[in-house]
Amino acid sequence: MINLSQAKPSELREMIRGNQLVKPTAGMAGGYAQANLAILKKEHAFDFLLFCQRNPKPCPLLDVTEAGSPVPKFAAPSGDIRTDIPKYRIYKHGELAEEVTDITDYWKDDMVAFLIGCSFTFEHALLNNNISVRHIEEDRNVPMYKTNISCIEAGIFHGKMVVSMRPIPQKDVVRAVQVTSRFPDVHGAPVHIGDPGAIGIKDIQKPDFGDSVTIREGEVPVFWACGVTPQSIAMETKPSIMITHAPGYMFITDIRDEKLGVI
Amino acid sequence: MINLSQAKPSELREMIRGNQLVKPTAGMAGGYAQANLAILKKEHAFDFLLFCQRNPKPCPLLDVTEAGSPVPKFAAPSGDIRTDIPKYRIYKHGELAEEVTDITDYWKDDMVAFLIGCSFTFEHALLNNNISVRHIEEDRNVPMYKTNISCIEAGIFHGKMVVSMRPIPQKDVVRAVQVTSRFPDVHGAPVHIGDPGAIGIKDIQKPDFGDSVTIREGEVPVFWACGVTPQSIAMETKPSIMITHAPGYMFITDIRDEKLGVI
Repeated sequence: MINLSQAKPSELREMIRGNQLVKPTAGMAGGYAQANLAILKKEHAFDFLLFCQRNPKPCPLLDVTEAGSPVPKFAAPSGDIRTDIPKYRIYKHGELAEEVTDITDYWKDDMVAFLIGCSFTFEHALLNNNISVRHIEEDRNVPMYKTNISCIEAGIFHGKMVVSMRPIPQKDVVRAVQVTSRFPDVHGAPVHIGDPGAIGIKDIQKPDFGDSVTIREGEVPVFWACGVTPQSIAMETKPSIMITHAPGYMFITDIRDEKLGVI
Repeated sequence: MINLSQAKPSELREMIRGNQLVKPTAGMAGGYAQANLAILKKEHAFDFLLFCQRNPKPCPLLDVTEAGSPVPKFAAPSGDIRTDIPKYRIYKHGELAEEVTDITDYWKDDMVAFLIGCSFTFEHALLNNNISVRHIEEDRNVPMYKTNISCIEAGIFHGKMVVSMRPIPQKDVVRAVQVTSRFPDVHGAPVHIGDPGAIGIKDIQKPDFGDSVTIREGEVPVFWACGVTPQSIAMETKPSIMITHAPGYMFITDIRDEKLGVI
């Protein structure tokens, strides 16, 4: 049995392409960055690229493909965006229409794929600093919340930021800010520390996406911008078609986590 | 007489708008970021935005305007991109056609303006670290060179990177890397340290743009990606029209230098 955490990104993408690995990708290809996906028609590509430029915390770009090319040539030159994610979501006019394991039938020559950095990279950095990550400890998906923080709009794209939350012991909060600040391409520093109500979260135990996790005495909820934001934006903006990964089922790139550190 | 280094960005932009201040902007509005300019027609805007995303060291974006709007609403909400730069360059089909102090007559409803970070911000940070900046000492323009480093192409845009050079005492080279790494939005860390020949520079005393400066015994030439790169790219790519600032005549933003520090 292949050790998924030790496997090379290209090996894992090949297994995923053959539908041999239809599962969340957390923990696979340790040390390599994974990515969120958003695919749009070329007519919306400038607006979305501008949206990402204006909102680099929820939407830090790792790669953008040429229109019609399914190859993310910088993030994974041997990859194919149509087949190398274990599970995709098809949004039509802002509604989730279908979940599929291959989007070859949906792919058109005027589509552009955006690969957006994923928090797995900075979670690895937190763990290396002896700051534990609760949802990993509890073997759950990270809790994610819609906030009252407006993204900066660009063309047709607008909406609220989605954040992920990790409870951090009070004594480690400053270090958590420092550690994640090194990685702006995977959401970077937190967007908020403490009171969930201040960013419009009513009940910390009821996340809008993912699972709830235990917050212990002496721990502070710390919130990072989240790569699920584009899906929430799609639901508000309602483009005729937008294809994304299913939350947790990411694209595994050839980019080393540490290469994303700014210093 | 107004003290230009202490004046507010909005005051200076108003003077520039009235053609009362047709001079290089170095040293004006101390503590505020200045910006390089590139204006293109909307049909080329996606390609150029993608070029900037793929080449963040020479082309870090501070703001991108909506097509047809001359207002850089994030970098300077009270600014007007058509009048607030002391001197512009008009490139037609890759040739420098004219230098003007106002581009209102050239402005069209399908134009998009890109404001790109400028090295003044990190030079200020070097000075605050007691690392002197030779061309400021010698009251010259920074020396800039075409290199053999290829930018990553995007659509029609391709070409070589332009770099600026500052001689740094051997003992300060590591600190210079650290200090400038904090500011990725104004070119960030150097792209090369030492041997000019290794990046295709034949004669360090003959810059392609700007002035030559003295390199003293025990100093190392250190090279940073430069915001003049888009002008060099324009000359190779030859879009029907591209409007830029004249080197040294920058756009003064309302953004505080320190707000651009990633940590």
